[in-house]
Amino acid sequence: MTAPKTSWIASANDGQTHFSPQNLPYGIFSIGNGAPRVGVAIGDQVLDLSALDDAGLLPAAAKGAFAAPNLNRFIALGKPVWTETRAALTALLSADNQTLAGNGALRDKALVPMSAATLHLPVDIPGYTDFYSSREHATNVGRMFRDPANALLPNWLEIPIGYNGRASSVVVSGTSLRRPNGQIKLPDDARPVFSPCRKLDYELEMAFIVGKPSNLGEPVSTADAPAHMFGMVILNDWSARDIQQWEYVPLGPFNSKGFGTSISPWVVTMEALDPFRSENPAQSPEPLAYLQQPARNAYDIDLEVALQPQGAATATTVCRTNFKAMYWTMAQQLAHHTVSGCNVRVGDLMGSGTISGTTPDSFGSLLETTRNGAERVTLADGVTRGFLEDGDTVTMTGWCQGDGYRVGFGQVTGQILPAPR
Amino acid sequence: MTAPKTSWIASANDGQTHFSPQNLPYGIFSIGNGAPRVGVAIGDQVLDLSALDDAGLLPAAAKGAFAAPNLNRFIALGKPVWTETRAALTALLSADNQTLAGNGALRDKALVPMSAATLHLPVDIPGYTDFYSSREHATNVGRMFRDPANALLPNWLEIPIGYNGRASSVVVSGTSLRRPNGQIKLPDDARPVFSPCRKLDYELEMAFIVGKPSNLGEPVSTADAPAHMFGMVILNDWSARDIQQWEYVPLGPFNSKGFGTSISPWVVTMEALDPFRSENPAQSPEPLAYLQQPARNAYDIDLEVALQPQGAATATTVCRTNFKAMYWTMAQQLAHHTVSGCNVRVGDLMGSGTISGTTPDSFGSLLETTRNGAERVTLADGVTRGFLEDGDTVTMTGWCQGDGYRVGFGQVTGQILPAPR
Repeated sequence: MTAPKTSWIASANDGQTHFSPQNLPYGIFSIGNGAPRVGVAIGDQVLDLSALDDAGLLPAAAKGAFAAPNLNRFIALGKPVWTETRAALTALLSADNQTLAGNGALRDKALVPMSAATLHLPVDIPGYTDFYSSREHATNVGRMFRDPANALLPNWLEIPIGYNGRASSVVVSGTSLRRPNGQIKLPDDARPVFSPCRKLDYELEMAFIVGKPSNLGEPVSTADAPAHMFGMVILNDWSARDIQQWEYVPLGPFNSKGFGTSISPWVVTMEALDPFRSENPAQSPEPLAYLQQPARNAYDIDLEVALQPQGAATATTVCRTNFKAMYWTMAQQLAHHTVSGCNVRVGDLMGSGTISGTTPDSFGSLLETTRNGAERVTLADGVTRGFLEDGDTVTMTGWCQGDGYRVGFGQVTGQILPAPR
Repeated sequence: MTAPKTSWIASANDGQTHFSPQNLPYGIFSIGNGAPRVGVAIGDQVLDLSALDDAGLLPAAAKGAFAAPNLNRFIALGKPVWTETRAALTALLSADNQTLAGNGALRDKALVPMSAATLHLPVDIPGYTDFYSSREHATNVGRMFRDPANALLPNWLEIPIGYNGRASSVVVSGTSLRRPNGQIKLPDDARPVFSPCRKLDYELEMAFIVGKPSNLGEPVSTADAPAHMFGMVILNDWSARDIQQWEYVPLGPFNSKGFGTSISPWVVTMEALDPFRSENPAQSPEPLAYLQQPARNAYDIDLEVALQPQGAATATTVCRTNFKAMYWTMAQQLAHHTVSGCNVRVGDLMGSGTISGTTPDSFGSLLETTRNGAERVTLADGVTRGFLEDGDTVTMTGWCQGDGYRVGFGQVTGQILPAPR
């Protein structure tokens, strides 16, 4: 772990905040009716990068990239500019630096309490891909949806299975979603019914955001893959299990997923996450050559999911797990995605798939926690849930634990509204 | 059919051209190193709308929308502007109109031989969805990939099955594509091999382009669906059958499709296609209420696929079929896509799925024509094909046959290059 750093912004140094001086995640914020622009989260504040840029305090190479409604323009400038900008921000925020700290007028302009900021979708997402890389999750699902005796499909240990998701309905944390209507096939009926989803679920995922594009016809190797990643967010892949079960053969999930996907607003950079790389998971059989990879492509990220019914006084944590247990790494996902020649673009969102551990309290979806609704999870005040009910709020959070500091993602939260009639 | 119209551009009136005065499809073209901009195909010419706009001959509401590298800005202006622009173009091109015909300087500036133009991807595509709406195709595939006795899956007659495709790799006609590498599971091997695709195929499809967005959480009815469509193109959904068969369970096709999808360069508007609406196909069982629809949502479009090996003197037509035979209509597809609350955006591309008739010479893929390579199709000079070989060029074309004129799509063509090594 890197040595602790301190900032002249006191709230960044308490050891608990996700937004320590070691983090410096990028997002898009606005104040009142002001234009959305690029900010960095630091403690309980948002640092307005467009204001710093106007004041000439950021790299010349990034000039003008921060007065934008998404991060794509900044990201497209490339890794040297990311690194230079991070170095400039680290210096400006350091406890011993007076450039910003000592300039009251600029400080008042550039620092905004996060509580006063509206956070927006951080990137324009040209493509959203969702993988399926937790062995425990794939096994749990296979057991329920397919054959309990052969829960893991034959291709799963060979391929970092993924599919194309729907980018249009990716929303930022805080956006409420309406319960989807759709076709549901009940076991005793000859034909499906049209109904609000009865098995609405969340899926706890992480996602990386592509920072460097690739060309059509030119695969990205596992060795080069990390250079194509800008940063990461937490992702809630809301899922309608009953719609999914009826629709998904043979072309995969569609309406069961496309009604909404939520991501956290702050993009934590790969540079900030670098100290938290961990050993790759053991893989057997040994993957095909194009999927073999350099060491330490996994990331040690603690994750939690909490569920709060409408009107309940508190949220109850229903899952605690860690991202490092995923079987396939992000580098393998990207190498597989592009090995056919498929190109990726700046801002592409690549979901990990549901992150589940080995015990029920570490499962990343209610489908697994409640065994498809056969059991119920107990929340505060004795309330129970099989699947999500209208008014329920799901909140996911995650952080890397450093020595006396955290590099965290904040949270992704969303409330379920009743289905349209 | 509408009454024949004639233009002062003679090549538009020969009865054979796809680009009659009744058509007026929009595309993006450039000349030499000039900037890509909006054009309309008329006979063997391209009409430069940015030049007409500069001259003040197009609707004020569309001012500035044609000096753009894609159609999205024009499309986003909405249906009244599409209609007004079409009316202005129809007038300017009419045989009895001298505004443009009689202005030599402007005519020289605004009319470009199509043979001199480079055509570009007509729209920026925020999302690409591919449906699976030919009953004959779904039955043929089910027979080969799954159970011959129960070829059509139980959900197929209830749901206009679709999945999310990869928008990044949608390319314009004329773009060569490299044969994809990928995982292939050979029947006698315990594990997959990594290899260039050995069963490379095309799929003949049509696609519509969304012209009016919808909001998250707000379904579009079948009655409203046509108002959300701007126009149509031909689409070749290149497919790697061996990669597909190993990867597609349970989340659907991914690398077998994502390496490239080709579309024709001219977007034929729904207004131009309106005279060619035809009766909806018979559907049994009667669809659920949200899929029931007004009459005449099908379109009568003749389609052909031709295959030409490298060095061969001629292309051989290997498929002749018609779009009107599709089981699910585009209105039903859009209603289904959005019934969950999923939103659509201007420029979204919605593929129909492979269009197959009832006889082998009307099948829209080699998978079906050659029964997964078990038989071979014979081309000119006695050359045969099971699947596509390197150097092969696939060309698809389609048109609506009016009384003495055609409203056509031109073609979508592409050559297969060897796999990357």
